[in-house]
Parts: sequence; structure tokens; C-alpha cells
Amino acid sequence: MSTFLAEFLGTMMLILLGDGVVAGVALNKSKAQNAGWIVVTAAWACAVAVPAWIFGAASGAHFNPALTIALAAIGKFSWASVPGYIIAQMLGAIVGAALVWLAYLPHWEATEDKAAKLGVFCTAPAIRNTGGNLITEIIGTFVLVFAILGLGQVKMTDGLGTLAVGLVILVIGLSLGAPTGYAINPARDLGPRIAHAILPIAGKGDSDWGYAWIPVVGPIIGGLIGAFLFNGIF
Amino acid sequence: MSTFLAEFLGTMMLILLGDGVVAGVALNKSKAQNAGWIVVTAAWACAVAVPAWIFGAASGAHFNPALTIALAAIGKFSWASVPGYIIAQMLGAIVGAALVWLAYLPHWEATEDKAAKLGVFCTAPAIRNTGGNLITEIIGTFVLVFAILGLGQVKMTDGLGTLAVGLVILVIGLSLGAPTGYAINPARDLGPRIAHAILPIAGKGDSDWGYAWIPVVGPIIGGLIGAFLFNGIF
Amino acid sequence: MSTFLAEFLGTMMLILLGDGVVAGVALNKSKAQNAGWIVVTAAWACAVAVPAWIFGAASGAHFNPALTIALAAIGKFSWASVPGYIIAQMLGAIVGAALVWLAYLPHWEATEDKAAKLGVFCTAPAIRNTGGNLITEIIGTFVLVFAILGLGQVKMTDGLGTLAVGLVILVIGLSLGAPTGYAINPARDLGPRIAHAILPIAGKGDSDWGYAWIPVVGPIIGGLIGAFLFNGIF
Amino acid sequence: MSTFLAEFLGTMMLILLGDGVVAGVALNKSKAQNAGWIVVTAAWACAVAVPAWIFGAASGAHFNPALTIALAAIGKFSWASVPGYIIAQMLGAIVGAALVWLAYLPHWEATEDKAAKLGVFCTAPAIRNTGGNLITEIIGTFVLVFAILGLGQVKMTDGLGTLAVGLVILVIGLSLGAPTGYAINPARDLGPRIAHAILPIAGKGDSDWGYAWIPVVGPIIGGLIGAFLFNGIF
Repeated sequence: MSTFLAEFLGTMMLILLGDGVVAGVALNKSKAQNAGWIVVTAAWACAVAVPAWIFGAASGAHFNPALTIALAAIGKFSWASVPGYIIAQMLGAIVGAALVWLAYLPHWEATEDKAAKLGVFCTAPAIRNTGGNLITEIIGTFVLVFAILGLGQVKMTDGLGTLAVGLVILVIGLSLGAPTGYAINPARDLGPRIAHAILPIAGKGDSDWGYAWIPVVGPIIGGLIGAFLFNGIF
Repeated sequence: MSTFLAEFLGTMMLILLGDGVVAGVALNKSKAQNAGWIVVTAAWACAVAVPAWIFGAASGAHFNPALTIALAAIGKFSWASVPGYIIAQMLGAIVGAALVWLAYLPHWEATEDKAAKLGVFCTAPAIRNTGGNLITEIIGTFVLVFAILGLGQVKMTDGLGTLAVGLVILVIGLSLGAPTGYAINPARDLGPRIAHAILPIAGKGDSDWGYAWIPVVGPIIGGLIGAFLFNGIF
Repeated sequence: MSTFLAEFLGTMMLILLGDGVVAGVALNKSKAQNAGWIVVTAAWACAVAVPAWIFGAASGAHFNPALTIALAAIGKFSWASVPGYIIAQMLGAIVGAALVWLAYLPHWEATEDKAAKLGVFCTAPAIRNTGGNLITEIIGTFVLVFAILGLGQVKMTDGLGTLAVGLVILVIGLSLGAPTGYAINPARDLGPRIAHAILPIAGKGDSDWGYAWIPVVGPIIGGLIGAFLFNGIF
Repeated sequence: MSTFLAEFLGTMMLILLGDGVVAGVALNKSKAQNAGWIVVTAAWACAVAVPAWIFGAASGAHFNPALTIALAAIGKFSWASVPGYIIAQMLGAIVGAALVWLAYLPHWEATEDKAAKLGVFCTAPAIRNTGGNLITEIIGTFVLVFAILGLGQVKMTDGLGTLAVGLVILVIGLSLGAPTGYAINPARDLGPRIAHAILPIAGKGDSDWGYAWIPVVGPIIGGLIGAFLFNGIF
């Protein structure tokens, strides 16, 4: 399997399982409606860990342009592969979001709230505040990239490191996810936002493009800070 | 121990622990009534992982005709053993459901809602929609079989792979389980549905046979797609 | 350390952490009041796993007369040590319950509900029904002992087996704990019940001695069934 | 990396992720508001485990003056390094709390409740009772230090011991955290309390200095008891 196929499939699985839980919690008549923050954050943690186990050997399991760029910036990944990885991640995110649309097919019409439907696909801030939202995404992705690199240098038995990465995703969601919905990954936000714009979702509203740059720029900045801090001390 | 006995006992344990949590959440006067989606999904995850650890060496711990058929279809399991495995799984599921009836014995009479009582045994869709429900079960079982096969080729320390399978069950429930109640396993749905029809449950209603084919056919299709995709790329 | 000291301290820790979560969920003004079934069951799972790790090498970490008796019955533990183990477990449970009383000291007076205060210490059925309650405790302890023995013959990396036992406790609580509060351990119920009778708890009621034999007899029967089934097939 | 830098960064991460979840649960308009006790306790568990993995090899990952002092008292840590460790832990806690303030920047003004805002930073008792609160913190930290030392002598595969420590934090929170908010760590409480006093938090109230000594003195006493008990029996 090529590294690009691994990134495509892994990111597809990440978004299918990640956006899937938001659909379950947000859409009307869903058995998991309003199931709470622990449901959302536990699902995203597994949504990262499961494909990271499966595709880790093939591609390193980035699934996240902010991580790919940060690794390249500190010389742990080839700049030449960065564009291909990002394209694969974006396409995987779009296809994953389309699968969520299919998995919850009868629920879109049952849901009137347009913002809830958009929220299944991409993030929106709890309080709209450009500076504040950007800072939140920077801090969250700083933790993500620093912790992934930090865990990478720990002696762990085979497979346990990926479980630990899952716990990193869990705790970022629990502790830093509440102000912006923790994109911490440009592909996770922009890919499904594009899917929302393209797909024939029953009764959808606009795709909130005015906010779309924050979960792209914030994670890239935060990832770079995390990578350089790691590089400076380890 | 024969492989058939292992499949029988493992599936019995799966359904005792899986349907048990639905009884706890759904039946009146239960200490866990309305305890929420995280309770349901965490229990089903452990309900798979615990017998998978115990019986994995004996039978491979399928507990699921959709997985058995998918493995046979890609040459990873003998077709000759398929009928015996499926019979063992079905019988185990029926006995497991009967044990749930016993474990919650005083609660059936205390519960008036006939649909809630049926829901302890087998799945029902949140929105009844043949095409949509079928798609949901296909996607859920596709993830299940693809992930089990994918995890099977990962280098993991002894025993950790089964924990990872438990997390696969957890995340399928959290993220894709809300529209149909995630059968993702023909034995998990049909076996307890038969038990519901047979057992002298206080104040029970009909067994909703009209829906019964969807959690059989959907999982078989989804499992085959997952297995062939895995086979094509790994 | 003697095996008896290990059983005493381990059971003390089990009850301190197990009854502690019930105090947190049940007592007035507690920050965790009504925190839900996942809180209760996750805490009991860790309350077993943590001392099982710490004292496993010293005593085998039974902490449960039903397990001790079941192991002796199938020749995996010396009958001569059974009385000493049970005494240590009972004393540990009583001391653990006394520590819970201390840890929540200002909350007893703040809570009027006498049944809630008793419920911190020992179990009570959701529906009082001698036959039904006994069956529930038998099935729960059957799963407990069968699963512990079953996991004991699985090849696991160092330390992971104890985590798996924790998941067994978790799923028994989630799936089979709702009708009776899952004693599944005579020491867990009788020890704290004695503590409740002895301690000067503000505004306490009676200790419900009429029910006390069920969480003793049920677990012993269930444990024996689990052990003999294990012995017959593995 | 120096041990002091490791303690500084690890404690910073601990408080960023730990106080972060309280902000998410407590502040107005947060997506996690009132998300419940399982969210709070799961986050604190990961908030310890993740930096403990990353910095364990560098400094032993104390992140807690009560643990540092207890280890020194039983000869497992050099008294000469104690002051440096404690200074690093306190500074890390202050910086971590400042990052939480930044991550939730627009939410402080949106929240009127001054006690809720203080509660993001440091602990407050559910019932104000000097003796009772002190006992709760002593018992909680006794379990913490005894369990960390106890787990340290268990044979575990690489990396699993830190996961087990995370479960210790989880269960202390679930079972013993409800009366006082489980500081069980002087730096965790005093550092963020200082940050609360210093930072220009919108609409903040006083920093409740009258209570501040309890989560310092209680944990030190409890940690010493735990360490000496461990030393006496293992």
C-alpha cells in the first residue's frame, strides 16, 4: 500500500468515526442525541487510535496536515511528500464525511437546525472571537504535536504508544475542546466543510466559510510551536 | 475445547453482557435506567473483548456470522466450518438472551413499554427506513471487519490486540450505532429475537419480524466489503 | 508481606475506593451527586484493578470469599488458607468502609435519606424479590469467576491481564449490576454492612439484615458454577 | 533536559489539561458545560498519565510536592533536589493555569459566577469543614502515594505502569474527590491559586486564601503516611 493510500483511508476512517459521533449526538431522533461530551470525546479518541494502529506502519498515520507540516519543519518528514500527504488527507476527510451523511441518511430531513447539521461536518466556536478562537486552536494543537513527538521517544511495548496517542486526543477534547470544538487538524475541518458544501444534505444551510481559516491556520501555528519546543528540549 | 463450544460460549457471554446493559438502561426500576449512550457502548465493547480474550485461542473468537462469512470469502477461514460456527453463534446468542431475561427477572413485569422490552433483545431503527437502515448496518459492519483484519496485521504485544478490538466496538457504537442500534452481527440480532419470541417474558409484545432481515443482510454485505477492501490493499 | 496482610490491605483499598464512589454519587452536597452509572461502574473497576496489581504477587489478589472458595473447590487454592483469607477480606472490608465514612465525614449529617446512607456501605435490590435477586447475584458472580479463570489461561504481556480483569468488573457492573447493585462478593457486602452497624454515622437507619444473606449465598453459588464450568472445558 | 525543566513542563501540562477540563465544565457558553463528573475525572487521569509518559524518564514525573517529599522521606529521592523540584512544580502549575486562562479567553467575561471562575483554578470544599476537608485530602493522597509506590514494584510491560497510574488518578477522583475536589497535590492547588490572584481575569473574585493551606498540608501528611506504610510492608 502506498503511503498516500494509507493517509487517504486513515483520514477517511478518522472522519467517518469522528464526524459520526457528532451526527449521533446532534441529529434529531438519533438514539444518541444529547449523549454528552464524554461520548463525543471518547469517540474522537478511538477515531484516531484505530486507524493509527492500522495504518501506522504504512504512512506514520499523520491524518493531519498540521502534524505533517510540523514534522517536516523539524526535519522528521520529507518536504517533498508534504503536498501528497495533505491532498490524501483532504480527500479522505471529504469521503469520510460523505459516508457519515450516508450512515445517518434519514436523520437529515428529521433535523431542522441548520447549524446542528453543519456542526456534524466541521467546527464552530462557542463564542465567536477571532483572537480567542485562534489561541484555543493553537494551544490544542501545540499539545497534540508536542505530546505525539514526546510519546514517540518513550520506550513502550508494541502497540501501547498508539493507545497513549488516543488518550492525548481524549484529553485535548475533554480539556481544551470546549471553546472551539477542537479542530486541531486542518483536514478534519476543511475537508468535511467542503463535503457539506457539495453534498445534497436535506435542508442544509451555508457552510460558514468566514470561520474556515481559523481551524486551518491555528493548528498549523500550534503544531509548529509544539514541534520546535520538542526539538529544543529532547 | 472444540471450536464450536468456544463460539457457543463466547457468543453466549457476548449477548449476556451486551443485551444485559440494554436491560439495565431500558427496564423500569433498574438502577441504571436511562444511564446513557456511554454506558451502552462501553458495555458492548467489553462484552466483545472479554470473551474474545478468553476464547480467542480456541476458535478465533468470531461470535458473528458476518465475520465468519467474510473471513471465508477471502480464504482466511474454511467454508466447511462456516455452518457449524453460525449454528454455535446462534445458539449461544439465544442462551445468552435467556440469561439476561433471568438476570432481570422481576423487571419485566415492572416495565409496561413493549418496545423497550423487545429492544433489550434485538435492534430497532430510530427512523424506520429500509434503504437507510441497511446502509447504516453495511457501513458499521464494513468498519468492524476491515478494522479487525487491519488490527490483525499490526505488531502488538500479547493481549493488546483484543483491547484494540474492544475500542473498535466502542467507536462503532458511539459513532455509527445511533441510527439502528448497531447490530453489525446477524447472530446478535436474530438469536435474541428468537429468544424474545420463545421466552415467557411478562407482558411482551410482538418480535418485529418485518425488520429482522436488515440486521442479517446488512452486516453480511458490509463484512464482505470490509474483507475484500482489506484483501485488496494489505 | 504475608498473604493475609495482602488480602486485608487489598480488600480495604477495594472497599475504600468502591464504597467511596457510592458515597460521592449518593450523599447530599457531594460534587459527584447523581453523577451516574458510568461513574459508579468505572470506579469499581479501578477499585479492583489497582489493588490487584499491587497485591497480586503477594496473595493472588482474591479480595472476595466467593473467589477464594471457588478456587479451593477446583483445587487451585488450598482449603487450609481459606478461613484466613476470608477473615482478612472481611476485616479489610470493614476498615475500608470506615475510611469511606471518614473521607465523607461532613456529608452524613447533610444527607437525610437513611437508605442512601446504607447504600453507600452495602447493596440493596432495585426490586426486592428473593428468587430474582439471588439469580442476579449468581449470574454476575458466575461471569466474574469464569472470566477471571478464563483470562488466567490467556497469554498476556506483563500487567495487562489485571487491566482485563478490571474490564470484567466494569462490564458486570454495567450489564448485570442494575437489579441488585452487584455485590458479587460476600466481603464487599457483609463487611461494610457490619461497619454501618458499628460506626457512629450521623442519622443512620437500620442495616437491612434481612437482605444480608443474599449477597453472601448468591456469589458463593455463582462462583462455584463459574469455577466448575471453567474446569470442565479448559 | 534537566530534571527541573521536566518537572516544570510536566506540571505545566498537568495543570493546562486538568484545570482546562474544569473550565470546560464550569464556564458559561462552553460546549462542555455541566458535562459531569466522568468528564472531569477522565481528563485529570489523562492529564497526569500523558506528561508522566513523556517526562518519566527525565525526572521521574512527580509533578507533585507531596510525592516528592514522601519519596525523600523514605530515602527514594534526594532531599537536596526537593527544593528545586517544588519550585519547578509551582512555576509549571502557574504557567499551566495561565494557559487555561488563554485557552478559554472569551469565556471569563461570559461567566458571572465568581466562585465558578476560582474553581477552574483551585479546589474548594463541597462542605467547608476544616477537620473533614483535611481528612479527605489526607486519605486521597495516602492512596495516591501508596498506589504509585505499590505499582512501582509490579512487573509491567514497558509503558503500562503509567497507564495504571492514570487509573489511580481516575479512581481517586471518582471515589474520593467529591468532598474537596481532590487537590492531592500542593502545586496543583497553590500554583493555580496564585495564577488566579495575578492574572487579569474578567470579573474575578477573591482567591479564597483561608482555605489554601488545607490542600497543601493535607496532601503532605497523606503522602507521608502512604510512603511509610509502603516502606513498612514491601
